[in-house]
Amino acid sequence: MSEMIRVVVDAMGGDNAPGELVKGAVDAVNGRESIHVILTGRKEAIEGELSKYTYPKDRVEIVHCEDVIETAEPPVNAIRSKKDSSLVVGMQMVKRGEADAIVSAGNSGAVLVGGQAIVGRIRGVERPALAPVIPTEKGMSLLIDCGANVDARAPHLVQFARMGSIYMEKVLGVKNPRVGIVNIGAEEEKGNALVKETFPLLKACTDINFIGSVEARDIPAGVCDVIVCEAFVGNVILKLYEGVGSTLIHMVKGALMKNTKTKIGAALIHSSLKETLKAFDGSQYGGAPLLGLKGLVVKTHGSSKAQEVTTSIYQCELFKKQKINEIIKENLGENN
Amino acid sequence: MSEMIRVVVDAMGGDNAPGELVKGAVDAVNGRESIHVILTGRKEAIEGELSKYTYPKDRVEIVHCEDVIETAEPPVNAIRSKKDSSLVVGMQMVKRGEADAIVSAGNSGAVLVGGQAIVGRIRGVERPALAPVIPTEKGMSLLIDCGANVDARAPHLVQFARMGSIYMEKVLGVKNPRVGIVNIGAEEEKGNALVKETFPLLKACTDINFIGSVEARDIPAGVCDVIVCEAFVGNVILKLYEGVGSTLIHMVKGALMKNTKTKIGAALIHSSLKETLKAFDGSQYGGAPLLGLKGLVVKTHGSSKAQEVTTSIYQCELFKKQKINEIIKENLGENN
Repeated sequence: MSEMIRVVVDAMGGDNAPGELVKGAVDAVNGRESIHVILTGRKEAIEGELSKYTYPKDRVEIVHCEDVIETAEPPVNAIRSKKDSSLVVGMQMVKRGEADAIVSAGNSGAVLVGGQAIVGRIRGVERPALAPVIPTEKGMSLLIDCGANVDARAPHLVQFARMGSIYMEKVLGVKNPRVGIVNIGAEEEKGNALVKETFPLLKACTDINFIGSVEARDIPAGVCDVIVCEAFVGNVILKLYEGVGSTLIHMVKGALMKNTKTKIGAALIHSSLKETLKAFDGSQYGGAPLLGLKGLVVKTHGSSKAQEVTTSIYQCELFKKQKINEIIKENLGENN
Repeated sequence: MSEMIRVVVDAMGGDNAPGELVKGAVDAVNGRESIHVILTGRKEAIEGELSKYTYPKDRVEIVHCEDVIETAEPPVNAIRSKKDSSLVVGMQMVKRGEADAIVSAGNSGAVLVGGQAIVGRIRGVERPALAPVIPTEKGMSLLIDCGANVDARAPHLVQFARMGSIYMEKVLGVKNPRVGIVNIGAEEEKGNALVKETFPLLKACTDINFIGSVEARDIPAGVCDVIVCEAFVGNVILKLYEGVGSTLIHMVKGALMKNTKTKIGAALIHSSLKETLKAFDGSQYGGAPLLGLKGLVVKTHGSSKAQEVTTSIYQCELFKKQKINEIIKENLGENN
């Protein structure tokens, strides 16, 4: 029998809590015998959801917490004052080694703050990085960093590149991932002060496959596997990706519904178009890991459905099996 | 008779030079009696193109230049060494007041460098800004700055906001344009150091309609009219806009061509879809002005066709009629 992995699921976080979170957890334990989930949150609500399903009782645990961190709450305050929240309690279990990982669809800021303040950084990692997977025409790329720590310095970006490369190779199975830095032109001398300082440092890294500058225009085509940038730019890329995508899809739908003729056309292309656009939906790849922490914290979309929660839990298993934290420690740790 | 405007068209710049540039210029003079164009570039090539059309000869002038600046040439070198290029000669005419404006589809970097070095800044404007119009679901927004001067400081961004607001109102006819600053969250305390420093300065401006932070996700929906950011972020937004758009459209086309059934569907929706997607094509709004210079420099897409060139020339006329430079000088100039 393979090694068990214990994953906390923050049952109260996200737009679809607790229903979809509990369903995702149940699907994960039913799908794999190696999964043990710990649902943190209001016991009664969680039990209500669990009663709808059949599942191995010995691999689903509930840890009751009274508090719930709301989506719009100021993160630092929330983490400090809501000690008995599903997120804080879950993170403390990861910190104490009672769980290997936590998956949360809740307040992004609180997940980032809690990850650093409670779970803690690997010694030697200067900044943890939030690294979502974004869809491309060829599959997917890792965008690192999209976290809350803006105004990064060059050594941070180098660590992001190395952690991202490890994750992409070991967890997402991309051999020798191509690492690019987001820039405003392809030439080495282009860029702002941060990029100019970081470029030669990345070029000198022997443990990554650095391919140079990447222009934002080429990201959707899948020009590289690990896209390195500081968090402000990463956040703009991530959100504009969503924004342009949803606006265009909205406009295409409008064009399809214009008149009787287009409606007939729409019926004929519906399944093919749906399938194509599904490939451009990032949530199928699971959540975004917060890399560089002593335990694994995975942030899934606030709108996560059960499928994304299940995928994220499986992602945690691979993360543990592949010993990602040990590799990060070896490569980036202080004794390196 | 209305006042004449003299516009230089850099006939050698861009992917479709000189053909589309010359055609665009001819269409502009044929369309409006107030337009006089000066085509700079190789005389023989320009005359060859002009011979295809009928047009008022007294309003189309050729100024022969021997040199051509190539698309990939390093900008500073190009401007310095190619004194007899269509771009440099055209800009010198603007500088000397022999022309009111120049439209170029050539090397972006050279247009920016030349604009500053040859045409020169309005005294009091710390940095000129390149401000393309991007399409949104509701129409268009001005993205300022997308130029080559990265690492801007807060006072620069404030000037961008004010110049962008003037342009949007006077040239593009948006009453009391809503100005937003690109940020990673809606709250005032969010952002990187630059945004945090700029936010209260924008809030204190009495001459603009500042609506606060704008997340990249909301840009395509048309949440504001003037989008303020420093050039690195602006460049990422502009290029990712294009990239996500073209990737998605490419994918949709693939879905439509999948099999016989989808091909029939595609034929039925073709004209409606084409019309919808055309609305999301920025080139219909003409080129991007380089704001804050003593004369008007308009950069059109490298791939510009005649229509975009004509629109850009008309844009120059409105720019002059509305006395944009005088207004910028009054509002931002040193004696203000």
